[in-house]
Amino acid sequence: MEQIQSMKSFGGEQRVYRHKSSVTGTDMEFAVFLPREALDGYFCPTLFYLSGLTCTWENVTTKGCPQMHAAKHGMIFVAPDTSPRGEEVANDPAYDLGQAASFYLNATEKPWAAHFQMESYLTEELPALLFDALPVDEDALGVTGHSMGGHGALTLAMRHPSLFHSVSAFAPITNPVDCPWGQKAFEAYLGSDQSKWAAHDACALVAEKGWDGDILIDQGLSDDFLENQLKPWAFEAACRKAGVDLTLRLHGGYDHSYYFISSFLADHMAWHADRLE
Amino acid sequence: MEQIQSMKSFGGEQRVYRHKSSVTGTDMEFAVFLPREALDGYFCPTLFYLSGLTCTWENVTTKGCPQMHAAKHGMIFVAPDTSPRGEEVANDPAYDLGQAASFYLNATEKPWAAHFQMESYLTEELPALLFDALPVDEDALGVTGHSMGGHGALTLAMRHPSLFHSVSAFAPITNPVDCPWGQKAFEAYLGSDQSKWAAHDACALVAEKGWDGDILIDQGLSDDFLENQLKPWAFEAACRKAGVDLTLRLHGGYDHSYYFISSFLADHMAWHADRLE
Repeated sequence: MEQIQSMKSFGGEQRVYRHKSSVTGTDMEFAVFLPREALDGYFCPTLFYLSGLTCTWENVTTKGCPQMHAAKHGMIFVAPDTSPRGEEVANDPAYDLGQAASFYLNATEKPWAAHFQMESYLTEELPALLFDALPVDEDALGVTGHSMGGHGALTLAMRHPSLFHSVSAFAPITNPVDCPWGQKAFEAYLGSDQSKWAAHDACALVAEKGWDGDILIDQGLSDDFLENQLKPWAFEAACRKAGVDLTLRLHGGYDHSYYFISSFLADHMAWHADRLE
Repeated sequence: MEQIQSMKSFGGEQRVYRHKSSVTGTDMEFAVFLPREALDGYFCPTLFYLSGLTCTWENVTTKGCPQMHAAKHGMIFVAPDTSPRGEEVANDPAYDLGQAASFYLNATEKPWAAHFQMESYLTEELPALLFDALPVDEDALGVTGHSMGGHGALTLAMRHPSLFHSVSAFAPITNPVDCPWGQKAFEAYLGSDQSKWAAHDACALVAEKGWDGDILIDQGLSDDFLENQLKPWAFEAACRKAGVDLTLRLHGGYDHSYYFISSFLADHMAWHADRLE
């Protein structure tokens, strides 16, 4: 694990690491903010933030101001990449498939399966690396994300409840089996047998597995993707039916951008800090 | 004045405007955050933020999270561009001269004088536009900036004390007549007669005009430009000699980036809010 950037920020350090991933078979980069407490060696609650389509670790790291809130709560903030990358990695000219569009699952279909193993990367390899190298409290790990990353947060938390102890999302794709982004990605990565898709659909997962805790979702009502792709009402109905605690906050006037995310990131990080204590 | 972007943020609106400038003879763009109070029509204290070399209105708007603090203080936050732009505007291949490198003065030399009239733009045309179109409190206008923009903030405040009522800076070029960036720019924009340069040098200005108030400067000690270009000790000595109140905060480990600026922007905005009440 090679540290390729380090910038002091809010009394802590914003770092970027690069490492060889045996799971994706590529070099992977991720950003991590360490608050002062972590630099002093204390084990800290840690939040994973999974980004949306087209993003890298850089978007939330530079545009979300997570460092301010992480410093306040003594929390480590980890921003992984959105997919494996490289010339040897399969790709697609569309922004919503291939590199930067992994949908955070393990692909089973060619040509994707060779490298697109993001679920194993995020729930096995990266946590193991972090637990080994940094003062990440293994018993206080939460996950959040935006859009495709909100889908990733919800589904990875419910699929790995012993790893993730809290979960929230910004404008998540809640029902990928029933929206164009999700259908396109799942068909490519998981194949045309739709019976395999439900295992990666937040609505189906909350019905099947539930969630032992509460869930926070923020959604802007001027989000261009609300009706066609995100559909938080589908997840609301699924939580209602499954008896899972959900706080769904609808915000008039907010769009799908980092102006929306940064407006509510403080709330999410306080919420995770409360639950990871 | 045409509104070309509007995004809801922290209960207010982040807007971007474009307008024809008669002063620069070009189209100019600027960003402005309006807190909820401004949207409700109340006149608000307003802070200008002047950016550094290579920047546009976008850098601080997306990376500094000024909206959070502006919303908290009910303050309007204005991020102008760093120079006139366009194919018809003189330029230089170097990053530190020409477009995005105006040094916020009125150029007197060819080929720059035709468009590089940023002092008049920022102290006459833009304020008049804002006073006319938005609920900017004319008696509560402050200015801050970073690097070249810190130079702009200090010099424009001291040259226009009836316009700007508070001033602070992040890692400002404090003594441009005595550093490579400043000497290169001043020679190009103002000519080789160095007697004309002092009127745009913060150290010379504080000696000549002083400042009826206090000044806040933050500086990172791991800033690569500290020794050669920024030299806050020159301004400290000039303030000491002139009897001007200065708070110069030196921060170990911080660099010249927006990780530094965002770490301390809350303090600056609270500081301006106190002084603009």
